[in-house]
Amino acid sequence: MTETTIMRSTALGGRFSFELLGTDPGSLARRGRIETTRGTIETPVFMPVGTQATVKTLHPDEVLGTGAQIILANTYHLMLRPGVELLKDAGGVHRFMGWDRPILTDSGGFQVFSLAANNKVTEEGVTFASHIDGSPWKMTPESVIDLQLAFGSDIMMQLDHVLGLPAERPAIQDATERSARWLERAVAAYDNRSGEATRSVLFGIQQGGMDADLRVWSARTVGSMDVAGCAVGGLSVGEPKDVMNAMLEISTPELPANKPRYLMGVGSPEDLWNGAERGIDMFDCVLPTRAARNGALFTPDGRITITNRKWQTHHEPVDPSCDCAACSRFTAAYIHHLFRAREVLGLRLASVHNLRFLARQMEDIRAALDSGTFRGAAAAFHDRYRPVANRNTAHDHPRGAVRS
Amino acid sequence: MTETTIMRSTALGGRFSFELLGTDPGSLARRGRIETTRGTIETPVFMPVGTQATVKTLHPDEVLGTGAQIILANTYHLMLRPGVELLKDAGGVHRFMGWDRPILTDSGGFQVFSLAANNKVTEEGVTFASHIDGSPWKMTPESVIDLQLAFGSDIMMQLDHVLGLPAERPAIQDATERSARWLERAVAAYDNRSGEATRSVLFGIQQGGMDADLRVWSARTVGSMDVAGCAVGGLSVGEPKDVMNAMLEISTPELPANKPRYLMGVGSPEDLWNGAERGIDMFDCVLPTRAARNGALFTPDGRITITNRKWQTHHEPVDPSCDCAACSRFTAAYIHHLFRAREVLGLRLASVHNLRFLARQMEDIRAALDSGTFRGAAAAFHDRYRPVANRNTAHDHPRGAVRS
Repeated sequence: MTETTIMRSTALGGRFSFELLGTDPGSLARRGRIETTRGTIETPVFMPVGTQATVKTLHPDEVLGTGAQIILANTYHLMLRPGVELLKDAGGVHRFMGWDRPILTDSGGFQVFSLAANNKVTEEGVTFASHIDGSPWKMTPESVIDLQLAFGSDIMMQLDHVLGLPAERPAIQDATERSARWLERAVAAYDNRSGEATRSVLFGIQQGGMDADLRVWSARTVGSMDVAGCAVGGLSVGEPKDVMNAMLEISTPELPANKPRYLMGVGSPEDLWNGAERGIDMFDCVLPTRAARNGALFTPDGRITITNRKWQTHHEPVDPSCDCAACSRFTAAYIHHLFRAREVLGLRLASVHNLRFLARQMEDIRAALDSGTFRGAAAAFHDRYRPVANRNTAHDHPRGAVRS
Repeated sequence: MTETTIMRSTALGGRFSFELLGTDPGSLARRGRIETTRGTIETPVFMPVGTQATVKTLHPDEVLGTGAQIILANTYHLMLRPGVELLKDAGGVHRFMGWDRPILTDSGGFQVFSLAANNKVTEEGVTFASHIDGSPWKMTPESVIDLQLAFGSDIMMQLDHVLGLPAERPAIQDATERSARWLERAVAAYDNRSGEATRSVLFGIQQGGMDADLRVWSARTVGSMDVAGCAVGGLSVGEPKDVMNAMLEISTPELPANKPRYLMGVGSPEDLWNGAERGIDMFDCVLPTRAARNGALFTPDGRITITNRKWQTHHEPVDPSCDCAACSRFTAAYIHHLFRAREVLGLRLASVHNLRFLARQMEDIRAALDSGTFRGAAAAFHDRYRPVANRNTAHDHPRGAVRS
């Protein structure tokens, strides 16, 4: 595929753009590029999660060294601790945490509904009690824009109404429609409060549960609004993987082709390939770092458990084909020892390895799209990689990353 | 002070030497240099502790970046986990942990008496139960030489008989004399099993509790043996600091001037200056990394507690005069946030800072000795630095680093 721009979108102020560089003839997969004032992001891309203004256990330079182009932080968490005023005084979240590349902040909608106590939704917004100290808080579509502008986020997410599953259709429809109304207010607030003066852009979030009609309606609604990108929320929350794939297949074609599409809370190596195949450009998940801290390391054949006896005397890297900072310097036997001895360096090496593994998947996906070999590359990946299970787990959902 | 060698000692095989480069006219302080096959060590030197083949929370490159010239590991811990056979298969402890500079291994005598259960001393050695799984183990003066040779340690410590305090004089005398007999056996075992074929050298350990006569006797005895260096054990175990200083003043002059002197389990910034002033060349302690993990950071004015409210909005480095990787990149407010949010990166940044602080103390001490200004430099340090307490705490003893 030659690199020519097929489509392009530019957000307010011209400081954020997305170029669609190519599409795969045999699937919905796309190759693209996001330009921000803090750097270029080649897509499809996986974004490591730094919920509390730190990618757990890692130094920003180590995160960068894994090939990360953009990371996440979380508005709910940052609002509660260290707080927006402190972050403003610190010069924004980038400066606070020593990361000068792009940052996407999730709105915190998911955390309010999954983590905080006493959450109560009205049309105005949501009230809840902090999971840290029980203090009362409120979020509205407008206030989360204010917060994210204050953080200096490069990509801001709208506040959405997230439902716990299982839920009845009327409840899903109600939340999906409310999320759409909240997006209208978010767009108005963004326009009103910053307009072209900021380099932060706003993404909307498609909802709709596992209901095909609502998904399509939500995709069209979000896609019709003045947003820089469209996220797909409410998936990877416990449904079987073929259900998630079906939801993507019916809804991503309804999203505007000239804007980036972000599948929230995904994921596992197989889901990155599956999502890219279905037209997704951006992914995030706590899975690689959380799994790492539990001793689960990715390899081309599937996850391994480093604490297993078989690794105790394995004086070779975990994955000889891996170029990560852990595999290129330390043996599986050493990492096994560190986990057995409960040493922090083990968590670090495992986290670096897993982030690099996912970054390499994305590099492989992009290279395959560039060379027109995506179908074969995807088949080769799936042929070899053995997934843990055929069901997404809410546990791995990035937006539930609270205690990760 | 011009750099000429005043005295020199060379251990068996000629692969380890100590040069005494200068002495301070106003104190017992000495400037020296140790040459090993894995690198040069400028003395006085502080050695970070990597009990379980990792300096807690840190990557070997980070340890090196603090200015560390040599690190410690612990025979008791490595014997139990990962075990000597595994370390042999790994190519030695250096290769296992990715550290190619010198490593000193403590014999584990201290851990057997402070950590293991059911320890029982006979003239032959000591039996005990592992603190990990209760399994029965035995150490003899000869077996710890074998273990440390198998690890590939650059500097090996003899097995010594360590007493809990308080103890009666007959018990102290008995343990001190037994330690001396065990050193004779260690020297014979070393001579017998490796001789000139190894690059590992053996240090003896002076004991004697807080008894001046026993200290002098032990110093003379250890000093008369064929060892590459002489350690001072059994101090910094809870006694007042002036008692420790008095013990050093009476016993270091009894040690051979042409061999390095190593004060075990020290220490705090003030104790490094005090020890150097009393003729000590080498120090080690878990204090900098353990204190760091508890949020206590060294500054030229004393320790600060990073979790205190006053640091929450301090958007400057913890110590503006510090050149460590934490202070040169992150603010106190960020490190405060990381500790409050229980994020691992906080432990790392604090550990890097404290190790660098101690390395800088040693650089200052060496520079002052080189320029003949030790007395003034020491006074300037003590004038500004406010110690936490005037008593050593057994808690900080490096040889008790088990759970650090």
